[in-house]
Amino acid sequence: MGGVEFVKGHGTENDFVVLPDPDGLIDLDGDDGRLVRAVCHRRRGIGADGVLRVVRTDGPVAAAAGVAGGEATWFMDYRNADGSLAEMCGNGIRVFARYLVEAGLVAPGAHPVATRAGTRRVTVDHTGPVTVDMGPAELGPYSTTVVGGAGGVELDGVAVDVGNPHLACVAPPSVALDTLDLARPPAYDASLFPRGVNVEVLTPLVDGAVRLRVHERGSGETRSCGTGTVAGAVAALHAAGRGTGTVTVDTPGGTLLVGVDAASTTLTGPAELVARGTWGVPVALGV
Amino acid sequence: MGGVEFVKGHGTENDFVVLPDPDGLIDLDGDDGRLVRAVCHRRRGIGADGVLRVVRTDGPVAAAAGVAGGEATWFMDYRNADGSLAEMCGNGIRVFARYLVEAGLVAPGAHPVATRAGTRRVTVDHTGPVTVDMGPAELGPYSTTVVGGAGGVELDGVAVDVGNPHLACVAPPSVALDTLDLARPPAYDASLFPRGVNVEVLTPLVDGAVRLRVHERGSGETRSCGTGTVAGAVAALHAAGRGTGTVTVDTPGGTLLVGVDAASTTLTGPAELVARGTWGVPVALGV
Repeated sequence: MGGVEFVKGHGTENDFVVLPDPDGLIDLDGDDGRLVRAVCHRRRGIGADGVLRVVRTDGPVAAAAGVAGGEATWFMDYRNADGSLAEMCGNGIRVFARYLVEAGLVAPGAHPVATRAGTRRVTVDHTGPVTVDMGPAELGPYSTTVVGGAGGVELDGVAVDVGNPHLACVAPPSVALDTLDLARPPAYDASLFPRGVNVEVLTPLVDGAVRLRVHERGSGETRSCGTGTVAGAVAALHAAGRGTGTVTVDTPGGTLLVGVDAASTTLTGPAELVARGTWGVPVALGV
Repeated sequence: MGGVEFVKGHGTENDFVVLPDPDGLIDLDGDDGRLVRAVCHRRRGIGADGVLRVVRTDGPVAAAAGVAGGEATWFMDYRNADGSLAEMCGNGIRVFARYLVEAGLVAPGAHPVATRAGTRRVTVDHTGPVTVDMGPAELGPYSTTVVGGAGGVELDGVAVDVGNPHLACVAPPSVALDTLDLARPPAYDASLFPRGVNVEVLTPLVDGAVRLRVHERGSGETRSCGTGTVAGAVAALHAAGRGTGTVTVDTPGGTLLVGVDAASTTLTGPAELVARGTWGVPVALGV
């Protein structure tokens, strides 16, 4: 293997390997996503939650993904660490946008980015927070969950659809957020969430801010989840009797800002590029 | 930060960031090891079990560590991911040796490497297994452990000192090695092991081979442990009535070969360099 150029970055500790591949020459899907799994392996590879391939929208990869022809120049071709496709990632797209600016592929400012979930607008500069349009978040029915397994803590929540399903639970003051066991899958109403659900537990809205933890279906507790942060903010506003507003969300991985208006939501937060290099075995050290 | 050159590598999934720093210009100990913790952070950094700094033995870092003046040209200045010092690492020194060859700092062959545990001889080429002299392994008293917490599985073992303390347990056929809970600390005789102990559980020696899992004190179960592999091989030979020999050890992270003679032990196994690059925030992408 000749070596693959990469950049490593993270947004609130959701971490990604950025693979610059404008013309779509890298085979990400061969052998069931072997390359993605190898590069994301935390001990044998670089290690990441997923891969963000940077490809032009006028090439064959974008055409195959059905995202060609829009206003965006760049397509965020996202894979989970296991090699599977994901449509969108609110933390990943901020890292992706920061990369575009740092690599000189776009100027600082507002830009459309193509994703499998549609075109998303990002606002990005060289160092500050990155804002991404997350699209509408739809409130659904009330439901309940039990976190921590049998005999665990029962919580009331509300369904929120942010393109993927969430149950966001504003916990009463009697619940100590920090001590909940969110590692194992919470129990939920499978008739309401037939494809599973991401579960957020958060503190009530005080001075425009909440603290939030999340269990992501299929992954366990994560340090931060973009759509979960939006879902939690919508639920916190709803519990406070409001349909719109701005919420600061403290997650274990860092602080995010969610804007909710009648038509859509935005997610604002940090994006850091922390390393760049060449990946592949054997690594050429230039001697 | 201007950026720190690094190489990422692993030996049987024990992974390391190699920091080439011949003249010892990097401050690894400032602010309680902040740099080491940052670079080893698996989401905000590169991610690794530890840092292997490559420094010359004729400089101030080696002098301060008390390893100057020997026959070795290079000192493996090892730090755990939490920033603390460690004297030796049987998987790390293989990665270190592979780096020396690939970077052109030594020719393929046998070389002394300075460590805080003394000078160790490594035999290394460009692609094959790397062998390191692990020093003598001393059998101690028999003892017992309980793995898996209260009500767990009680096992007989033997103390083995490989510079650090081990309790190596050759499990009877009734124990299913794969199902043991080695995540939580096994119970042990604190009068025999006042500073804690690493616990290995392994299958009996058959055709010169064993399978082995290890709980490292302070770390939990790991994919592989160099000294633990040596301790397990010594215990397996001892249980088979032998004091010397060669044992193939299958660990979750890969396969190692241990040689035991009257005076010393050797550890042979893979070492792979998987990535190279520049670490630091912000990353300069060259535009």
